[in-house]
Amino acid sequence: MEVDYKNIKVIGFDADDTLWVNETYFREAEEEAGRLLSRYETPNKIDQELFKMEMKNLPTYGYGVKGFVLSMIELAVELSNGKVSNDVIAEMLNIGKEMINKPIELLDGVEDVLKVLSKDFRLIVATKGDLLDQERKLEKSGLLKYFHHIEVLSEKQDVNYSKLLKHLDIEPEAFLMIGNSLKSDILPLVSIGAKAIHVPFHTTWQHETVTKKEANGSDFETVQSLTEILDFFN
Amino acid sequence: MEVDYKNIKVIGFDADDTLWVNETYFREAEEEAGRLLSRYETPNKIDQELFKMEMKNLPTYGYGVKGFVLSMIELAVELSNGKVSNDVIAEMLNIGKEMINKPIELLDGVEDVLKVLSKDFRLIVATKGDLLDQERKLEKSGLLKYFHHIEVLSEKQDVNYSKLLKHLDIEPEAFLMIGNSLKSDILPLVSIGAKAIHVPFHTTWQHETVTKKEANGSDFETVQSLTEILDFFN
Repeated sequence: MEVDYKNIKVIGFDADDTLWVNETYFREAEEEAGRLLSRYETPNKIDQELFKMEMKNLPTYGYGVKGFVLSMIELAVELSNGKVSNDVIAEMLNIGKEMINKPIELLDGVEDVLKVLSKDFRLIVATKGDLLDQERKLEKSGLLKYFHHIEVLSEKQDVNYSKLLKHLDIEPEAFLMIGNSLKSDILPLVSIGAKAIHVPFHTTWQHETVTKKEANGSDFETVQSLTEILDFFN
Repeated sequence: MEVDYKNIKVIGFDADDTLWVNETYFREAEEEAGRLLSRYETPNKIDQELFKMEMKNLPTYGYGVKGFVLSMIELAVELSNGKVSNDVIAEMLNIGKEMINKPIELLDGVEDVLKVLSKDFRLIVATKGDLLDQERKLEKSGLLKYFHHIEVLSEKQDVNYSKLLKHLDIEPEAFLMIGNSLKSDILPLVSIGAKAIHVPFHTTWQHETVTKKEANGSDFETVQSLTEILDFFN
């Protein structure tokens, strides 16, 4: 369906897996956890239990690497019946530090798209996760100069976006959000009357997936790569 | 010395140890760490080493409970030469969860002061630390209704406050900051030409202390309790 973007004044970008690679590193860390705990369980079981542990701890720890590492250590103690070695614990701490200090790998065309769109629109970043981590990633990315505002949200639900738009002093019709997560970057926006464009990333965290039914009938466009977005603004 | 507050439009409050008790819980957790590791070292040595570990990890983890727990676990593995028991690790994870989920203990007079000042000024919270933790504490505190804006900063240096004021669209002369940390809440403000009132808390984290020399000659007032601030605005 044709979506009309002529009222758009501000464009919001998700960060992780929209501007740069992120989920891939969590997948790698999960595989590493599977190897470290392989004497206690099958990789598949470890993967499932790690996800369960993360979900159990999400209300307490929130999103981000630090909470992930704490959940991984808690799982190690639990799965091993209190017998996991200090070496494994130390290795898990290192995995976390490496994730936090990874260089930024921009996704294809990101800089071109921001360069073009920043001429005609106010661009902002609206990201979930750890404040320090996200600020640091933006700094390292070299993309800060394109953005008027960086908003790190503890959740990305309707109410969080409504607050953000109020704070930016714009109407929903004037806001377009671009991101890789249907659940966090697209559906809440459609729900509050803003626009959204979905740019899928090849890997989606289980927690971020939505069923076809949940997305059904929602009014948003999907592109296969970020650069396609420029076609809408010619 | 007499400070003139007639140009003030916005008043910023620090949160931890200014609005509610916080540092006390970290002290208790540090003492608990000392007990848990007492077979390896003296409490004094453990305390020193924990502080060193936190400082080493601060650029990576930032402020907040999660980074504190990760540092505590790293220290346990290190001090014990890789022999610390899983029970101790599990106990450390629990200490962190309990800290995060502690009820909020407001400091004396906080609500009265906010009630009065919110009639004539725009009040904001400017806090350091973990975004989710701080949002949750504000929610639990029942104080959200007094504040126009909550800003969680990854650091509290001159540049962070300058950005905040730019974002709030006010001049430094129109901003007054109130907080317990000379280093984070007072000196940076004085340095950029804003006003600041120091309300000391009985416990200050070593990382937040400044020498007399650093504070010497800076133009700010000190009160012994938050309610005294109201005297300045009569």
